Amino acid sequence: MRRKEFDESRDTAELQQFLHEMSFGFLAVVRPDGSPGITPLNFVYLNGNIYFHGSRAGEKMKNLKANQEVSFCVAREYALIPSYYIDDSELACPATAYFKSVLLRGTAAPVEDLVEKAEALQAMMAKLQPEGGHLPIAADDERYQGNLKGVAVVRLTVSEVSAKFKFGQNLKEEEREKLADKLEQRGCPFDHETAGLMRKYAPSVGGLDET
Amino acid sequence: MRRKEFDESRDTAELQQFLHEMSFGFLAVVRPDGSPGITPLNFVYLNGNIYFHGSRAGEKMKNLKANQEVSFCVAREYALIPSYYIDDSELACPATAYFKSVLLRGTAAPVEDLVEKAEALQAMMAKLQPEGGHLPIAADDERYQGNLKGVAVVRLTVSEVSAKFKFGQNLKEEEREKLADKLEQRGCPFDHETAGLMRKYAPSVGGLDET
Repeated sequence: MRRKEFDESRDTAELQQFLHEMSFGFLAVVRPDGSPGITPLNFVYLNGNIYFHGSRAGEKMKNLKANQEVSFCVAREYALIPSYYIDDSELACPATAYFKSVLLRGTAAPVEDLVEKAEALQAMMAKLQPEGGHLPIAADDERYQGNLKGVAVVRLTVSEVSAKFKFGQNLKEEEREKLADKLEQRGCPFDHETAGLMRKYAPSVGGLDET
Repeated sequence: MRRKEFDESRDTAELQQFLHEMSFGFLAVVRPDGSPGITPLNFVYLNGNIYFHGSRAGEKMKNLKANQEVSFCVAREYALIPSYYIDDSELACPATAYFKSVLLRGTAAPVEDLVEKAEALQAMMAKLQPEGGHLPIAADDERYQGNLKGVAVVRLTVSEVSAKFKFGQNLKEEEREKLADKLEQRGCPFDHETAGLMRKYAPSVGGLDET
């Protein structure tokens, strides 16, 4: 389905911003019995790695011990586009969804170094609880020693990143404007933002849809 | 991490309702090279199966041809709970998230029967575009014949369902009420709903937390 419906290579700053906005993603693993496993996880993207935490004794850790190769996906749906918004269609076929999706592949392994563990957990707090309100997590703070040792922190070392940002890049200029206007009139929570992203990600004038 | 933090067996009607509310989930597969793959997908839960659609020629179909065993996860985060909402903690450790997550395991295979294809796609439209505004998708409607044959529809035959609904089930009654009140005062978009679910899923009085 490579019909120029979406950009597959957004720039790095934009991907990082998206990973920072999104509080959770989905980790896919191959379980010891060869079956696919999947878990939703809060995470932080730090120094080019994905970090998450969990119980040392949980199934997640058992799976990663057996096979460190993982995929991690972060996705957000911005708008469902009704079929009748496109070409005044009577058929259901044009119905679609606009979304951002980032896929990261790599290897995931537990972090043993307490300094790296503390940095990752502090970065996760700064992301998910930006207002603070807690003692900073630091490896040399005695009050955190027991918890830091007790919690499992996993670093996903990323070897491959790909992204799909689908915002009607395949539409002609006129169709795009019509649809963006309809979304703005509809006014669902993210419709204005979606209309803005449709215009932002539109193939540049004269550049057809080769971006 | 089995600390009675969440119910793992919600009743079926509740799971179905959640699957109906959520427009997309994440499909995990094992790819032909043995690595884990993951894709976000719009879906519908119909007659006990998960259905989704896509291109006949895409990577998704290639992966499923090689290995039909899949996991499908649908999750929604309701609230991030700041560390300082719990026990007036100075440490970051109590920070958490309340969420619903449903995991379905099974086998996924393309549907060839046009009647089943049409039913699945019509059910997906009824879910994602409940206002209608299109010709109903039916196998005997000539206007849909070409598209019905051209699109790939996949049925995930579910063999196992599990769910985690995490809403502070491990808290004591008094802690729960204090936290629910704080969420209601904070008033983020889903905080009132979250407070309601904390009370709804509270272990029944006298029943400790064994539900």
